[in-house]
Amino acid sequence: MSDFVIDPRLDRDSKLLIKLGLCQLRLMLDSRWPWVLLVPQRSGISEIFDMTPLDQTMLTFETAIAAKALKQTTGCLKINVGALGNQVRQFHLHIIARNEGDPAWPGPVWGHGDACAWNPDARAEFTERLLEAL
Amino acid sequence: MSDFVIDPRLDRDSKLLIKLGLCQLRLMLDSRWPWVLLVPQRSGISEIFDMTPLDQTMLTFETAIAAKALKQTTGCLKINVGALGNQVRQFHLHIIARNEGDPAWPGPVWGHGDACAWNPDARAEFTERLLEAL
Repeated sequence: MSDFVIDPRLDRDSKLLIKLGLCQLRLMLDSRWPWVLLVPQRSGISEIFDMTPLDQTMLTFETAIAAKALKQTTGCLKINVGALGNQVRQFHLHIIARNEGDPAWPGPVWGHGDACAWNPDARAEFTERLLEAL
Repeated sequence: MSDFVIDPRLDRDSKLLIKLGLCQLRLMLDSRWPWVLLVPQRSGISEIFDMTPLDQTMLTFETAIAAKALKQTTGCLKINVGALGNQVRQFHLHIIARNEGDPAWPGPVWGHGDACAWNPDARAEFTERLLEAL
């Protein structure tokens, strides 16, 4: 884990919330959707099969935990989970709360328009509730 | 597993290739991208946290196996993995081979234009190579 460095674009577009056993849990800086990232703190990983079976299992459990907390915090209709990496190769998994009528519904959020900054108070309140739900 | 029934839309849009330990591995009927689905053969699952921890682990391992086989078969630049479910609630995981310059690159494939039928010979050949690589 010692040689892990977060990709500069991920670092610019998201903010670290907490370090879990394997991953950094990060909040995307786009208030259009409640949207977090899991980034395994390992170097040289771009595909799921680059990880050891133990890390794959850890990632799955951290995904389920984060997805459940996001569902509980937002009361959303559906959770979207995706690992694309077409633009940033460092492995990162998106977990997004979706609702009918949200800006991209029912399409995917990636590549949809421009990010919208969070109101600082709303971000602090959302973060607090999400971390409590973890 | 006995009360599992594949969603009609998934059944229309994809073709069963093989049953793995947990999931059906299915080929999407869209030749624009080499694109498979994993569908856990469990009823009542729409989110990853609806699955037992054992099933979550199985899904992860089957994802890694299918993704690696798809990468090996296609020599693609990047694998995309996603579970959205905004239109079909039955849990299904997309695994897609992506390359620079493909029809949606670098955006996501979901919701991009209309599906393009496979040439039957090309589909048979691709399926054979993918199953060999599993």
